[in-house]
Amino acid sequence: MLLYEGKAKQIYSTENENEYVVYYKDDATAFNGEKKAEISSKGILNNKISTIIFEMLKENGIESHFIKSLSDREMLVKKVEILPLEVIVRNITAGSFCKRVGIEEGLVLDEPIFEICYKNDEYGDPLLNDDHAVAMKLATREELKFLKEETLKINELMKEFFLKMNLKLVDFKIEFGKDTDGNIILADEISPDTCRLWDVNTNEKLDKDRFRRDLGDLVEGYTEVLARMNNK
Amino acid sequence: MLLYEGKAKQIYSTENENEYVVYYKDDATAFNGEKKAEISSKGILNNKISTIIFEMLKENGIESHFIKSLSDREMLVKKVEILPLEVIVRNITAGSFCKRVGIEEGLVLDEPIFEICYKNDEYGDPLLNDDHAVAMKLATREELKFLKEETLKINELMKEFFLKMNLKLVDFKIEFGKDTDGNIILADEISPDTCRLWDVNTNEKLDKDRFRRDLGDLVEGYTEVLARMNNK
Repeated sequence: MLLYEGKAKQIYSTENENEYVVYYKDDATAFNGEKKAEISSKGILNNKISTIIFEMLKENGIESHFIKSLSDREMLVKKVEILPLEVIVRNITAGSFCKRVGIEEGLVLDEPIFEICYKNDEYGDPLLNDDHAVAMKLATREELKFLKEETLKINELMKEFFLKMNLKLVDFKIEFGKDTDGNIILADEISPDTCRLWDVNTNEKLDKDRFRRDLGDLVEGYTEVLARMNNK
Repeated sequence: MLLYEGKAKQIYSTENENEYVVYYKDDATAFNGEKKAEISSKGILNNKISTIIFEMLKENGIESHFIKSLSDREMLVKKVEILPLEVIVRNITAGSFCKRVGIEEGLVLDEPIFEICYKNDEYGDPLLNDDHAVAMKLATREELKFLKEETLKINELMKEFFLKMNLKLVDFKIEFGKDTDGNIILADEISPDTCRLWDVNTNEKLDKDRFRRDLGDLVEGYTEVLARMNNK
């Protein structure tokens, strides 16, 4: 049964009440849904790339909702209740941060920037600080501390992982959810839809900015990311 | 010599190179300068109100740039270099926070919200978290820790001070500066231009929202605040 349909994925219930199926669609959206397209095979690429990343993270001690891959477009996941927070890490300046504060794109940061945003399309996913999140009862101080520590660990693992395939992890957005035991674990997806990935030598963008900024064929970029993962 | 002209004040050098004169103008602006008016005697009221607040804070151990009142519209202050941060505390939800995240106005918060924004009109004084401020080299982690601690002390003192005159301190914006010895001290002004003040019984707004939202005569509100201060 379809439980939820987002911009890029559908979530289905299964016979096991503690497990869901995530189905990766071909829809691409940007700028809070203002720019849209259907891009054949994007869903397949993101499912495969997410699978590889969740597996890599698991091997390195990071729990996630991922259980196993089911098909080209489907993965079986633990049932979680998604926290209404977009969790972002920036290693190199790009995107909304540059636009909001007028800073140049491409500056390598001395230490990563950790951000939380309120996951709310109507208000454009506004930036929050910890005091806001606590006041809005979106998370406790202890949960926010865990989210930051876990996210910075994920950043280190992913940075190293992508660097092996000559990709710079510029920034990424992840989401967390609460499982049925009340544990907070990594959820959603990790793919070129949610990470900025630049080639180490050429700075070519192999992520969703190809779509946002009409920089080239999106599928070609995502296919290149998957190929490098499989060849590493 | 006029050194700097802001939206509501002018800063002049003096014969003493470590001291400036702040001159309070009658100009009122809102929405990042989009709404403007000249409101006769506003400058006098803000100079008097700021003077009383800086003196009250000094008696309670909070250093500021304030040295003494010189005239109806002028105060003598220590020379400081203003940090490019707007420091905000919220005790009750109102204003930009409500608009940004879609929260109701007037909710009393369990604990105050502390915010820092990048003082930059071109970008609309965007919200920052600590990681942003450090990455942008606007302040060090130690300075941010001091700003938060000092600001929360100021909040407690001001909340109590205003409550004695039947006013709720809803929120306020302050600025800090570095003096010639490198110490960070409270600077700028503290007035109904920079604080939201509501009557405890009627919730009548006695601050700049009267101007922002055309809620009534601004001078009448500020005069009422000053009268309550003088009668307490």
